[in-house]
Amino acid sequence: MSEKKQIRVALIGSGLMGRTHTNGYKRIGDFFPELEYRPVLAAVCSRNEEKVKAFAEQWGYESYETDWRKIIERDDIDAVDICTPNDTHAEIALAAAAKGKMILCEKPLARTLAEAKTMVDAIEAAGVKNTVWYNYRRVPAVTLAKQIVDSGKLGRIFHYRANFLQDWTISPDVPQGGTATWRLDADAAGSGVTGDLLAHCIDTAMWINGGIKDVSAVTETFIKERKHTGTGEVQKVGIDDACIFHCHFDNGSLGLFESTRYARGHKALYTFEINGEHASIRWDLHDLNRLEYFDHSDDSIVRGWRSILVTDGDQPYMKRWWIPGTSIGYEHSFIHQAADFFESLQTGKPCSPTFKDAYETQKVCEAVLDSAASKSWKDTGVHWEG
Amino acid sequence: MSEKKQIRVALIGSGLMGRTHTNGYKRIGDFFPELEYRPVLAAVCSRNEEKVKAFAEQWGYESYETDWRKIIERDDIDAVDICTPNDTHAEIALAAAAKGKMILCEKPLARTLAEAKTMVDAIEAAGVKNTVWYNYRRVPAVTLAKQIVDSGKLGRIFHYRANFLQDWTISPDVPQGGTATWRLDADAAGSGVTGDLLAHCIDTAMWINGGIKDVSAVTETFIKERKHTGTGEVQKVGIDDACIFHCHFDNGSLGLFESTRYARGHKALYTFEINGEHASIRWDLHDLNRLEYFDHSDDSIVRGWRSILVTDGDQPYMKRWWIPGTSIGYEHSFIHQAADFFESLQTGKPCSPTFKDAYETQKVCEAVLDSAASKSWKDTGVHWEG
Amino acid sequence: MSEKKQIRVALIGSGLMGRTHTNGYKRIGDFFPELEYRPVLAAVCSRNEEKVKAFAEQWGYESYETDWRKIIERDDIDAVDICTPNDTHAEIALAAAAKGKMILCEKPLARTLAEAKTMVDAIEAAGVKNTVWYNYRRVPAVTLAKQIVDSGKLGRIFHYRANFLQDWTISPDVPQGGTATWRLDADAAGSGVTGDLLAHCIDTAMWINGGIKDVSAVTETFIKERKHTGTGEVQKVGIDDACIFHCHFDNGSLGLFESTRYARGHKALYTFEINGEHASIRWDLHDLNRLEYFDHSDDSIVRGWRSILVTDGDQPYMKRWWIPGTSIGYEHSFIHQAADFFESLQTGKPCSPTFKDAYETQKVCEAVLDSAASKSWKDTGVHWEG
Amino acid sequence: MSEKKQIRVALIGSGLMGRTHTNGYKRIGDFFPELEYRPVLAAVCSRNEEKVKAFAEQWGYESYETDWRKIIERDDIDAVDICTPNDTHAEIALAAAAKGKMILCEKPLARTLAEAKTMVDAIEAAGVKNTVWYNYRRVPAVTLAKQIVDSGKLGRIFHYRANFLQDWTISPDVPQGGTATWRLDADAAGSGVTGDLLAHCIDTAMWINGGIKDVSAVTETFIKERKHTGTGEVQKVGIDDACIFHCHFDNGSLGLFESTRYARGHKALYTFEINGEHASIRWDLHDLNRLEYFDHSDDSIVRGWRSILVTDGDQPYMKRWWIPGTSIGYEHSFIHQAADFFESLQTGKPCSPTFKDAYETQKVCEAVLDSAASKSWKDTGVHWEG
Repeated sequence: MSEKKQIRVALIGSGLMGRTHTNGYKRIGDFFPELEYRPVLAAVCSRNEEKVKAFAEQWGYESYETDWRKIIERDDIDAVDICTPNDTHAEIALAAAAKGKMILCEKPLARTLAEAKTMVDAIEAAGVKNTVWYNYRRVPAVTLAKQIVDSGKLGRIFHYRANFLQDWTISPDVPQGGTATWRLDADAAGSGVTGDLLAHCIDTAMWINGGIKDVSAVTETFIKERKHTGTGEVQKVGIDDACIFHCHFDNGSLGLFESTRYARGHKALYTFEINGEHASIRWDLHDLNRLEYFDHSDDSIVRGWRSILVTDGDQPYMKRWWIPGTSIGYEHSFIHQAADFFESLQTGKPCSPTFKDAYETQKVCEAVLDSAASKSWKDTGVHWEG
Repeated sequence: MSEKKQIRVALIGSGLMGRTHTNGYKRIGDFFPELEYRPVLAAVCSRNEEKVKAFAEQWGYESYETDWRKIIERDDIDAVDICTPNDTHAEIALAAAAKGKMILCEKPLARTLAEAKTMVDAIEAAGVKNTVWYNYRRVPAVTLAKQIVDSGKLGRIFHYRANFLQDWTISPDVPQGGTATWRLDADAAGSGVTGDLLAHCIDTAMWINGGIKDVSAVTETFIKERKHTGTGEVQKVGIDDACIFHCHFDNGSLGLFESTRYARGHKALYTFEINGEHASIRWDLHDLNRLEYFDHSDDSIVRGWRSILVTDGDQPYMKRWWIPGTSIGYEHSFIHQAADFFESLQTGKPCSPTFKDAYETQKVCEAVLDSAASKSWKDTGVHWEG
Repeated sequence: MSEKKQIRVALIGSGLMGRTHTNGYKRIGDFFPELEYRPVLAAVCSRNEEKVKAFAEQWGYESYETDWRKIIERDDIDAVDICTPNDTHAEIALAAAAKGKMILCEKPLARTLAEAKTMVDAIEAAGVKNTVWYNYRRVPAVTLAKQIVDSGKLGRIFHYRANFLQDWTISPDVPQGGTATWRLDADAAGSGVTGDLLAHCIDTAMWINGGIKDVSAVTETFIKERKHTGTGEVQKVGIDDACIFHCHFDNGSLGLFESTRYARGHKALYTFEINGEHASIRWDLHDLNRLEYFDHSDDSIVRGWRSILVTDGDQPYMKRWWIPGTSIGYEHSFIHQAADFFESLQTGKPCSPTFKDAYETQKVCEAVLDSAASKSWKDTGVHWEG
Repeated sequence: MSEKKQIRVALIGSGLMGRTHTNGYKRIGDFFPELEYRPVLAAVCSRNEEKVKAFAEQWGYESYETDWRKIIERDDIDAVDICTPNDTHAEIALAAAAKGKMILCEKPLARTLAEAKTMVDAIEAAGVKNTVWYNYRRVPAVTLAKQIVDSGKLGRIFHYRANFLQDWTISPDVPQGGTATWRLDADAAGSGVTGDLLAHCIDTAMWINGGIKDVSAVTETFIKERKHTGTGEVQKVGIDDACIFHCHFDNGSLGLFESTRYARGHKALYTFEINGEHASIRWDLHDLNRLEYFDHSDDSIVRGWRSILVTDGDQPYMKRWWIPGTSIGYEHSFIHQAADFFESLQTGKPCSPTFKDAYETQKVCEAVLDSAASKSWKDTGVHWEG
C-alpha cells in the first residue's frame, strides 16, 4: 500500500454527487486493490464553512476550503472533482486546466455548447487527464449491453429508445434556485431535464449505438412560474420540465428519447431498449442488476426474453463484489468509474467519457433545445468516435 | 358439416363448470373443423326448473330435465357430462356407465378413494369412453412444459413445487352449503382445498413428473364454524381450508404442494416450478400464456430465465387461434379438452386424464388427508402410467 | 330466444378479422343473453370460392358470395361487416350506405383522409348505424383505464405515451402484396404501421385523453425493396416500416407514440401509459388482463404501482365471464364490441367509435404522415367530442 | 471524530463474510456519522499467513494473526467477529466470552443445539455484548415488512411461506471440505441448507411472525458421494442438499419453508410471503429494494398488489443513502447491522438477533433435522420473545 502512487483529490461541491464520488474514491483500495494509483482525499470545498467542515470530518477529507479558487492555487492538489451546479463547471475547469490539474467533472459538461467548447479547448491545451461522470455506463448490466452489441449479436440496429422519468417537481410549491432545487433554475442549470437526465440517455446511446445525426424535439414547461429561493420572488420558470425527441443515428437506426419530472410514480426510471435484426436488449435503472435479452436464434418453441441477473464473476465488474445472485446498487456505478479513472492513469488511455466525448453529447442537447425552440429538425454536428 | 358424426351430450349441473364445458363444446366446430365427431347439445339437467330452462335457452340446449335419472334413461343421449357437486359424481357415473354412455366428469373424480374406485370399476366394466376435466393440462404453456420435460431438456429432476392460492373464504360470513358455497360443506365436497385445488396440482405434477410415492401433510381449518345454508344453523366446518404437503416422486425428486383459500390477494394463483439438472420451468395461471424457462446451456454471460409468450403456431394448440402475440384465456383450456375428447373418439385412444388416471390422483389426495389426520407419512399406492 | 330481433349480417373478407368478428357474433347469445337484438350469420363474401365456401361451412354462415356487390344487392342483409384490405373499405361502405345497410368496418377507416371523408358523408347522408373495429377499447383493463381517468383520479394530465411494437417483417424475404402480406403494399394498405398499428394507439389515446392538436413525426422504411406477390417483381416498398411522433393534446399534455414492425422480440406489444398530477396508469396488450395503477395519495411508506388483475365482476365486462382470477384473451375485445353494437341498436345511441370518431383518428394519421414527409409540425384539425 | 469512542475489532476468518463485515465497519463513519462508537480494524486472523497479510493490507487492518487464540489473548481487542466455518464458532466464542470481549458471530450460531447452548451460557455468564449476523433483517424492505406487520395492517395471519433456492452444487464435481466448499462437509458445517439457508428464513420468520411451535420436515441428499478436499477421497456426503418443512406458528398460522442448492436458475432466491386477513406481503432477495404489498381495503376496482420501491427517506435506513429511486445492494444489510450494533453500545439495548435469539432459531433447525431423520413431527421448544 505504501508503494501506491497517491493522487491528491480535491472535491468541489458537497451535495449528492460530492457524496457519491467520495464514496467511489474511498472504496477503490478495498475492491480494486491492484491499482497502482490511489486517491487521497486532500480537500473538499463548499461555500458554507460550517457545512463543509462537517463534510470533511464525516468523510475524512484532510482539509477544506470555502473558495474554489483556493483549491486551484494549492500545489498539493493533483486532481479536481467538479460537483457544483452547472453554471460553475466551465470557470472551475478552465482554471484547473490552466494549473495542469486532472479534472473529473460532473455531467452535463456545461450549460451550453459554447461553454463546453471552452472546456474542451482548455483541457486539450493543457493536456490534462479528464473524465465526465456519466456514471450509468458503469452499471454492470449496461456495460454488458455494450459488450453484447459490440459482439455483433444484434446485427443491424433498427431502433434505440430511452427514457428517464421522474416525478419530484410536480408540486407547484417546489421552488427554483437554491441548494436543493438549483436544477429548476435556468441560470444555474442551463436547461431542465435535457441536461440533467436526457444527457445521460444520450451518452449511453451514443456509446452503444454511435453518433446521433439529427433531432426533432419538443419541450414543455408545465409549471410556468415558481418562487425563486434567491430573490424570494415568483418568477418565470426557464427550464424544460419535459423533453421528447426522435432522431436518426449514423447507423441508420431510429432513436426515441423522452424525459420528464412529471411522470407520477417514477422516481428515477431510466430505461433503454435496442432492437436489432437478430436480438434485442432492455435495461431499467429501477432493476439495475438485470439485463433483458431476446435472441431470435433460440429454438422457436422456447424462445423468449431472458432476464439476466448480472451478478456473476464473468460479467462486467462483478468479480470485484460478492457472490453470484447478490446485487449491487446505484453507488457502485460511481465506484467503477473512479476505479476506471485511476486505472487509466496506469494505462495511459483516456477514461471515457472524456470532455471530448461529453462535448459530443452536449451537441445533441443543444440541437434538441434548438429544435424544440424552432419547431424544426436540427443537425447535431456530432462526430462520434466513441 | 352434415357428414360429421354427432355425439349427443347431456350436461348435468349448470354452474360455472356447466358454462365452461358448454362453451367448450360450442367452439369445436369453429376452431377444430377437421374433427369427424361433433357434440350436439342434447340436454341440460339441473334441479331448479326455471333456472335450467333459462340455461337451456341461453346456451342452446335442445331440452332440459330436472332429474338426472331422466337423462340416464334417455336413449338419445350418447355422453353425460357431470358438473354437479362432488357428492353426486359416483352415483351419476355408475348409472351412466351401466347404460353404456360416455362420461366426462368434473374433478375431483369423487369425494373419497372408495367412491372413486367404484367409478373406475364401473367404466371399466362398461367399457365406455371417459375423461376427467383436469383442464389445466390443456393450457398451451402447460402442455409445452410437458413437452419440454419429455424431451429430456431438464435432465434429472430434483424438485417439483406447486401451489394454488385463493382468498375467497376469508370472511367468516361466507356460509357453507348451497349452490355457490357447497365447496365449504364437507358432505357435498368431500374435502376442501385438497380435492378442489390440490387435485389439479397433483394431476399436472404426475402427468409431467411421474408418480408420487409418499406424502407428509398438514391441513388447517381457520374458520371453525360457519352457518350452513341448508340447515340455517351455525355448524362445525368439516373441510380443510388449507393444505400443505411434501412428498417423494418415483423419480427421486422432492415435491412440495400448498393450497389455501386464505391467501389474501390471490384469486386463483396456480403456479408450478420444476428444477432439473440442466434446466428449469415455471408457470403461473395468472399469466397463463407465458412459460418461464431457464436453460443452463445458454452462454453464461447472457443466461437468464426466459419469458416465453406461448402464442405461436408451433406451440401447443395455438395454430387454432389468432396470431402470434395475441393471448387466449382460462376458457380455452376447456375448449382444448373438449376437442381432444372428440378427437379421441376418432383415434380410439383414451382422452387423458381418464377415470383411471384421476383415480391415481385421488390416491394422493386420500393419502394427503390421511397423513394430515394421523400426523405421519403415508404411502400413496400410486402406480402412474401417465 | 325466438322473440329476439334478428339482424342479418354479411361478412366481407374472411381473413383474421373475419374470424375474430364472426367469433364475436357467435358468442353474444351465450354471454349477453339479455340483448334484444341478435346477429344471424347470413352471408360471407370472399373472392376465392373454394375458400369462402369452406369458411361458410366452418363458421356456419347461411350463404356465401364471391363478389361483394352481390352482398350489397341482397335485400336479406341488414348489416355489412367490412374486413377486406383497406383499399376497398370506401367503395364497399359507400355502396352499403346507399342501400341503407348498417356498417361495421375494420380499422383504419380508409387509406386516406379524403377517402374517409367520403365514407363519413355517406353514412351521415344515409343515416345508417355504424361502428369501426378499434377493438382494444373493449379490453376490460383498457375500459377500466378510461373509467379511472374520467373519474378524475389522475387530476391534470401531463403525459400520454403509447407504442405498438411487432417484429414480423424483419426478414427481407417477406413479400409485399397478396392475402397474407397486403399490409406491406402501399396501394392496398395506404400506409404501413401508421394506419395498421398507430391508428389503434391514437383511437385509444383520444378516447381517454381527448383530441390531438398537432404532431411532429418521423417514418422509416428499413427494407427499401421487396418482391410483390402480384407482379412477381422486386418493387420499391411504399409503406412506413416504423413511425414515431410526438404531439400536443388539447388538454395541454404531451403525447409520444411509436410503432414499428422491426422490434425483435415483440409480437404485439401495444402499451400505453398516462401520467397525471395525482396518479398514473399503464397497460400492456401482452398482459391484457392487468392494469397498473399508481396512486400518489396512498400512504407514503407503502406506496407503489398496483398490478390490478382485471377479472372481477365489478370491473368492465367481467361479470359476463368466469370467476375472479380467471383471465380472458384477445378475442374477447371483439366479442365486447359486437355486443355493444347490438346493445346500441336497442338504446339508439351510437356505438363508438363511429365512422365520425374514426375520421378524427384518420386526421391524426394523415397529419403524422404529412409531418414525416415534410419534416415539420402539422396541425391535425381534430375536433374530438369522444 | 477524535471524540468518538473506539471499539477495536478483530475479525476471525477472511472469506466472503470477512469481506462483508469489514465493509460494514468501514462504512459506518461515512453513513452513520452521529454514532458515538466507532470500529477500529485492529486485527484480522486466518490460518494462511500470506493470505491474511494480504487481506490486512487490502482492507486496512492494523495487524494480523494466524492463530485465533492469539486474538483472544490480546488486550487491545474489544470485540471479536467470528466469520470462520461453523465448527469453530463455539470454541472461539467461549474463549472470547471468557475474556470479556464483545462477540459478533456469523450464522448459524453453531452446528448443533448443544453447541449453541454452551455459547449462550457463556455470553450470559460473561455479560458481554453480542449479536449474530442474520443480515437479511436489515434489508430495508424486510425491515419495512416487519413494521407493516407490527402495525397490525395484516390482521390475523394465516400463512407464512419462505424459500431459499440456489443451484451451485448441482455438479457432482463440486468437492466437499476446503476453503470454498466447507459448506458441503458435515463436520465443518453441521448441516447443509438447513443451517446455511433455512436458518436465515427461520430467523426472519420468527422475527416477523413469532415462534414456531412444531415442524414436519423432509431432507434429501441428491449427490450421495463427493471427493473430500481434505482426505482426497470420495466420501459419503453428510449434509442435506435440500430441506422442506411445514410448521405451526404460535399465532396459529401455517408455515412452509423450503431450501435447496439444486434449483437450477436460482442463485440466491430468498423469498417470503405473509398472508393476513386484511393484507399480504411478499419479498424477494433478487429484487431486494422492492416490497410487494396487497391491501384488501383498497377500493375494489383498483385493488392490486403494490410494488413498493423501498428507497425513500421515510423508509427504513434509506435516509442514510442517496435519493428516492436509487437502489442499494446486498452489502448494505451488513452495514446496517454493523451500525445497529454500534448504536446498541450507545443505547445499552441488545442488538438483535442476540445469541439468545439465534439459539431459538437453532432449536427450529435441530427440530427440522430431527423430524426429517425420524419422519415425524417434532416440537421445537421455542420460546420466542422477539
